[in-house]
Amino acid sequence: MHRFNYKKGELFCENVQVEKIAQKIETPFYLYSANTFLDHFRKLQDALREINPLICFSVKSNSNVAVLRLLVKNGAGLDIVSGGELYRARLAGVLPKKVVFAGVGKTDQEIKDAIKWGILYFNVESQPELKRIQQIAKVLKKNVQVAIRINPDVETNTHEFIKTGKKYTKFGIDFETAKLIFKNKNQFPNLDINSIHIHIGSQILSPAPFKKAIKKVLEFVKKNDISIKTLNIGGGLGIIYSLEKPQTAKDFAKLITPLFKNLKLNIILEPGRFISGNSGILVAKVLYKKITPSKNFLVVNTAMNDLIRPSLYDSFHAVMPVSVRGRTKKIKADIVGPICESGDFIAKDRKIFDLDSGDLIAIFGVGAYGFSMSSNYNSRPRCAEVLVNNKDIYIIREAETYRDLISKETFSKITL
Amino acid sequence: MHRFNYKKGELFCENVQVEKIAQKIETPFYLYSANTFLDHFRKLQDALREINPLICFSVKSNSNVAVLRLLVKNGAGLDIVSGGELYRARLAGVLPKKVVFAGVGKTDQEIKDAIKWGILYFNVESQPELKRIQQIAKVLKKNVQVAIRINPDVETNTHEFIKTGKKYTKFGIDFETAKLIFKNKNQFPNLDINSIHIHIGSQILSPAPFKKAIKKVLEFVKKNDISIKTLNIGGGLGIIYSLEKPQTAKDFAKLITPLFKNLKLNIILEPGRFISGNSGILVAKVLYKKITPSKNFLVVNTAMNDLIRPSLYDSFHAVMPVSVRGRTKKIKADIVGPICESGDFIAKDRKIFDLDSGDLIAIFGVGAYGFSMSSNYNSRPRCAEVLVNNKDIYIIREAETYRDLISKETFSKITL
Repeated sequence: MHRFNYKKGELFCENVQVEKIAQKIETPFYLYSANTFLDHFRKLQDALREINPLICFSVKSNSNVAVLRLLVKNGAGLDIVSGGELYRARLAGVLPKKVVFAGVGKTDQEIKDAIKWGILYFNVESQPELKRIQQIAKVLKKNVQVAIRINPDVETNTHEFIKTGKKYTKFGIDFETAKLIFKNKNQFPNLDINSIHIHIGSQILSPAPFKKAIKKVLEFVKKNDISIKTLNIGGGLGIIYSLEKPQTAKDFAKLITPLFKNLKLNIILEPGRFISGNSGILVAKVLYKKITPSKNFLVVNTAMNDLIRPSLYDSFHAVMPVSVRGRTKKIKADIVGPICESGDFIAKDRKIFDLDSGDLIAIFGVGAYGFSMSSNYNSRPRCAEVLVNNKDIYIIREAETYRDLISKETFSKITL
Repeated sequence: MHRFNYKKGELFCENVQVEKIAQKIETPFYLYSANTFLDHFRKLQDALREINPLICFSVKSNSNVAVLRLLVKNGAGLDIVSGGELYRARLAGVLPKKVVFAGVGKTDQEIKDAIKWGILYFNVESQPELKRIQQIAKVLKKNVQVAIRINPDVETNTHEFIKTGKKYTKFGIDFETAKLIFKNKNQFPNLDINSIHIHIGSQILSPAPFKKAIKKVLEFVKKNDISIKTLNIGGGLGIIYSLEKPQTAKDFAKLITPLFKNLKLNIILEPGRFISGNSGILVAKVLYKKITPSKNFLVVNTAMNDLIRPSLYDSFHAVMPVSVRGRTKKIKADIVGPICESGDFIAKDRKIFDLDSGDLIAIFGVGAYGFSMSSNYNSRPRCAEVLVNNKDIYIIREAETYRDLISKETFSKITL
């Protein structure tokens, strides 16, 4: 459930009319509902109360510092995957002991920064990385907690690009190698290898693959007499974009919780999309209605530079007028942006209210992997981000200007 | 032909050793060869001397102002598709009378800016747009030259996302509608509708579809007794990424030039990739060699945020070590970045020299749609751009810092 609702035909974000915001702020802009983020976070917290997990919000899904701060203030930890996300996490005021750091390509500098700050866990993705962290921890004279990311080779029914738990992906370590690592863990004197991490993918609709992966890991631990104090079960819970029927937090909890009975394990969870996905819409304006003998097109003022998910993942996003008052006629149209390639589309062959130049639209379900993947393609400045909390409206990122596009450009000769 | 060559096993960009640059500038960075841009530009100029076209470089393929300035100084016009590109074009010092403006979603502000500056042509993509330009020109009391972009419904053998000349795409106007526009052109008193524009796609390897589209347009003009003074034949000439055998400038000229015999037409050409594609490489470093029972991975410090073409278009880019000296052993590996999704890859199942942590690699053919599509996904700062001209090295864009990532973020309450 999200808090974007129509009242008397007008779209509201919590208690603010979206059209009113669009009269004040130039479209396009991302619009987030603070209480939708929090509702989803609390749903997970409540459903999983029995195992009381540390819920680390996946920063990559929505990285705006104001969003992170909101979740952190309400008890969330953070799941980071880069030095840039570590920088953001610090600004968000999270305790380092509530931060986990994943990713297959951590640089020396990133590892150093994270150790110095004192994060909770590195999720380690390969043997060379393990050695690197040991070396750096030794130099820094620090002790570091490590989770071995195991690739459980579990199938998930999601887009190929966001499957991460199959053995042919770049992620994690196979069971055999993990066994050797745990067996030889005293080869890493500065590391406390006391945890396992799994993350099998994103936008997963059924809890079954999670259960399967967790069971595999728990059997592995038992069979090999490995002692761990923490299990990080990753993220990946799917949401409703269209007609999906994803597990609820309760469904998930019901299947997962019994697995940990009588085990004294700290549990970490890394949800991103589940919390942020339906917490944001993209508000834009129709520029032209273009009727051709083959097709109808609504050309809008947002494009693949703002939202690349339809092109990259073939993903569906609901599109609605911001005001449906008095509208009845529907047409079938492609909703496309101004960017000069056919890959630039928001929706194809979509039945939508008959709109025309100047009408406002809302693109739903873009709170995750929306702004965080945006670019300046076609030299389009990136748009603003706005956060609504009940009746209060905050600009949390200003729209870029043309000048911003070239602010890092220069022409400085260097000599070797 | 590009100017990235190995001398005694070391990669050079023109007369500078790439490794030397990487000792001075942190990887990853884009590295461009000034004389490769110019060679390709001149090849087209020479081959087409007989019809003496205005060659408008497609800014969207590579938008760095230093690159634009280089081409402009050497005689190029510019093909722009947005207000941001117009801003860049002005900074590049191009004469407005050498600028054409295409795109299906021009905003009122963009149209105003372009009219005031005095660009050569609007390439108009729909009837509503034509009316809009008329309205704005009238208010500004200006006369504006317009090219009708015709969608010739011609098939091309390229990626679906970059086909733009089929009738089901959002681009251009069908012949019947175009006929009506020319017939009723005095309904647009502030517009001089004296040109036709076509652009059938990108990375097209054979000149046959170009010929077909041009012939269709010339027949249309003749049959309907339409008088035009300019024909803009678009861009889209393909280049070699792997084993392609694209037309040369000469092949193209040989097939195209005769079509314009005895016609007094100004010709405009809008090449992007043909000029910029092979003029740039992306220099990066291996972070980890990860050997798994299923696959080998070279994890490098560049990712889909720097170069999205492999994920988005399934495109091939050659990857080579910056130094091949003494290397003989090859392995098969996926070359992947640190971003946390399986869609983040540079190359899959690639035979490549056996590399290890710290080794530098060059990713070829990224001068077009490389940096211009880059993002901050996973909070990764965008990398630097470097231009080499013979022995001279220029930073033309500085790498972003963590601070840059959040420079537009704020938390300011607004009231409606």
